[in-house]
Amino acid sequence: MLAVSDFFPMWDELPDGIRAKLLRASRDRSAEKGARIEPSGENCVGLILIRSGQLRVHTSSADGREITLYRLLDRDICLFSASCMLHSINFELGIGVEKDTEYYLIPPNVFAEAMRESAAVSNYINSIMASRFSEVMWLIDKVLWKRMDQRVAAFLIDEAALDGSACLHLTHDEIANHLGTAREVVSRMLKYFESEGIVKLARGSVEIIDFEKLNAFAE
Amino acid sequence: MLAVSDFFPMWDELPDGIRAKLLRASRDRSAEKGARIEPSGENCVGLILIRSGQLRVHTSSADGREITLYRLLDRDICLFSASCMLHSINFELGIGVEKDTEYYLIPPNVFAEAMRESAAVSNYINSIMASRFSEVMWLIDKVLWKRMDQRVAAFLIDEAALDGSACLHLTHDEIANHLGTAREVVSRMLKYFESEGIVKLARGSVEIIDFEKLNAFAE
Repeated sequence: MLAVSDFFPMWDELPDGIRAKLLRASRDRSAEKGARIEPSGENCVGLILIRSGQLRVHTSSADGREITLYRLLDRDICLFSASCMLHSINFELGIGVEKDTEYYLIPPNVFAEAMRESAAVSNYINSIMASRFSEVMWLIDKVLWKRMDQRVAAFLIDEAALDGSACLHLTHDEIANHLGTAREVVSRMLKYFESEGIVKLARGSVEIIDFEKLNAFAE
Repeated sequence: MLAVSDFFPMWDELPDGIRAKLLRASRDRSAEKGARIEPSGENCVGLILIRSGQLRVHTSSADGREITLYRLLDRDICLFSASCMLHSINFELGIGVEKDTEYYLIPPNVFAEAMRESAAVSNYINSIMASRFSEVMWLIDKVLWKRMDQRVAAFLIDEAALDGSACLHLTHDEIANHLGTAREVVSRMLKYFESEGIVKLARGSVEIIDFEKLNAFAE
């Protein structure tokens, strides 16, 4: 099982006091598939160190539409569940649990103190934020410049890789919420892919039949 | 004139050695309106501290379309001109000079050293990155969920506020490049606004006649 220390590449160089504080404050937690972790405002839960599982970080419109920003998997650190600890963050993200997840939770005040005391800790959080920033810039690139058929095709391929399966248990509504578009748009695209023999549709699932053709659409 | 120390709220608490290093390494620079600062790869120029002027940070598609991410004004710090100093940044941004700009330039290696040595410096860069991240999330919200008439209206209002003038010297092409859309889309929208008596169009300029009506569109 992963230890708290496994999440921090510079652990051995941290002062004893900081290591002790982080270990003492870390809590064992788990969340079930389908749950939501509410990161914002008073519910600023803390830094999440994922031992195993899968989280989906997304943003929403005022009327409840969603788009997936990125996924967090084993060994990832979720920063935005502790956004109160990061100054100048003034947006809200939703965090959904996509697979049963085991994690360590470090309270935001304890971690903020470690960041104030240690340049190494602060620089590490910096690099994590930079990599999340990179994922969001990558998303902007797709949303702005890619056609919807490319985005649906790329999404199906990514999901199949993430799940290790060609049969994806996803409704059209769920796919629309990943891509920030309307269900009708997704349905139309999937029906087109079906007519081309690329996927097979059933209630609540999409099976990829022809990865080669789907790849050609994604590129 | 702003001094290097004015850009760092925690300047007085920094160790003498770090302050001396930053001062010694800072260079006086200027850039003329219309120039571009190339931040990426080998041209990682360093941290830019804007004494006066205006920079536009944007991203581009493979075929050269652009969208404005945010503006940087007096007293702002431009991080992404020193992206080599930030680990895990793997996207490229363009930086255009919109008004004659005077700035201090701190070489990336010198600043990276200050971040390694001082948690206060690192945390400050963290908060700047978080606020840029917030601006980009705000942009995502607009691009995904707002209609184009709202976005054009809001853009014109923001530009008028930035310039302190109701007459904007912008071509339809330039507006399209700010908003990440096609010139035709912008032209159609502006002509509609003109037909409603909201703006007056001339070659290379858009004059706002009715701020109240324009505001109603932006909301």
